[in-house]
Amino acid sequence: MERVTRHFQEQLEVLQERLLAMGGLAEDRMCDSVKALTTRRPEMVERILTGDEPINALHIEIDDRCFKLLALHQPMAADLRAIVAAVKINTDLERVGDLAVNIAEATKRYLEHAPVKPLIDIPRMGNIAQAMLRDALDAFVRRDMQLAEAVLAADDTLDGLKTQIFRELLTFMLSEPSTIEPALDLILISRHLERIGDHATNIAEDVIFMVSARDVRHHLGDHS
Amino acid sequence: MERVTRHFQEQLEVLQERLLAMGGLAEDRMCDSVKALTTRRPEMVERILTGDEPINALHIEIDDRCFKLLALHQPMAADLRAIVAAVKINTDLERVGDLAVNIAEATKRYLEHAPVKPLIDIPRMGNIAQAMLRDALDAFVRRDMQLAEAVLAADDTLDGLKTQIFRELLTFMLSEPSTIEPALDLILISRHLERIGDHATNIAEDVIFMVSARDVRHHLGDHS
Repeated sequence: MERVTRHFQEQLEVLQERLLAMGGLAEDRMCDSVKALTTRRPEMVERILTGDEPINALHIEIDDRCFKLLALHQPMAADLRAIVAAVKINTDLERVGDLAVNIAEATKRYLEHAPVKPLIDIPRMGNIAQAMLRDALDAFVRRDMQLAEAVLAADDTLDGLKTQIFRELLTFMLSEPSTIEPALDLILISRHLERIGDHATNIAEDVIFMVSARDVRHHLGDHS
Repeated sequence: MERVTRHFQEQLEVLQERLLAMGGLAEDRMCDSVKALTTRRPEMVERILTGDEPINALHIEIDDRCFKLLALHQPMAADLRAIVAAVKINTDLERVGDLAVNIAEATKRYLEHAPVKPLIDIPRMGNIAQAMLRDALDAFVRRDMQLAEAVLAADDTLDGLKTQIFRELLTFMLSEPSTIEPALDLILISRHLERIGDHATNIAEDVIFMVSARDVRHHLGDHS
């Protein structure tokens, strides 16, 4: 293998590694935000609210790596698709980190009130969103189309849970006005989790495009 | 100018033109969704809910153009930055289109109830978000750093309005339970508008990076 090519391949692998590290950080922050809610731990909330420096730094580093790979190596075909996918996945992961902060903000307010109800569906949403995120990144690493398609399917479950949570909490709010404020925050949290699922979906779509050069967005592919 | 270079420059101009068309579509849909709410027009809501085909098609077309430009011309420096920026801006504009649909969905539910209050701050948020979006795209076309910086500043106003709306509507919900359902939808709409502002902010940040190769994200630049 030519020296320049080998260097390029090594750099591509480092890029992938850093993207997985970014995924790990985003996932941890998301899980911690839900755990802080279910276990009612304000000090855990604070850690999330103040701890976004590492993920932000990594976001910039990865963007920079993608840009340098494009500029210095002028990659073609599959490599080019992988790097453009990395640019997009990086953005999605950064937003997942932001959403963990949004969940922590709502949790902070929520913990000022008595619990509205035992939380069952919100942790379930958290688990599904986490699995989607992990599967989407696994699909990226393994170039696994089938796994990416499974992520797209899981999004419907998340959507259904969000609607169910909305209806249930609305009933609480209507029957007991003292629950209005905390129930509102639970509704917002369920929407943040749904959006994390949307980002996992975006990543899965990018993987499918990268592997197949087939565009499944806007339901023009198999999902039409 | 060499023939290949001239072709590349022409294609870059077409890309910019299509991106502006995409921006126009996103802006129109966003404004219509707010107008449908303030003028209480269900038929306008339906038009937004069913009319996302053109913007989705354009999203794919632009992505495809960026990819071809990267693959066929292997651009360097400023051109490379412009194309990577176009990929990101395209994604942001598509999300603005999705958010217009989200506003229309909430409006559809809202119109089933009596109005909670005269709407003043939500149309204001709509106007600010629209101006931010337009300025961000203008800044892209004119490579205008100062205009891009102004977009970043406007985001704080939008944020302030969102908080104000939240507090005001919470008061309504607590004092008059019949307003809970429609007030909830107004809160969601204000959050969708805030997110449109976030996308305009992303675009402005991409413009600043493109023009200066300086990264202003995560407040590492002038906004630290």
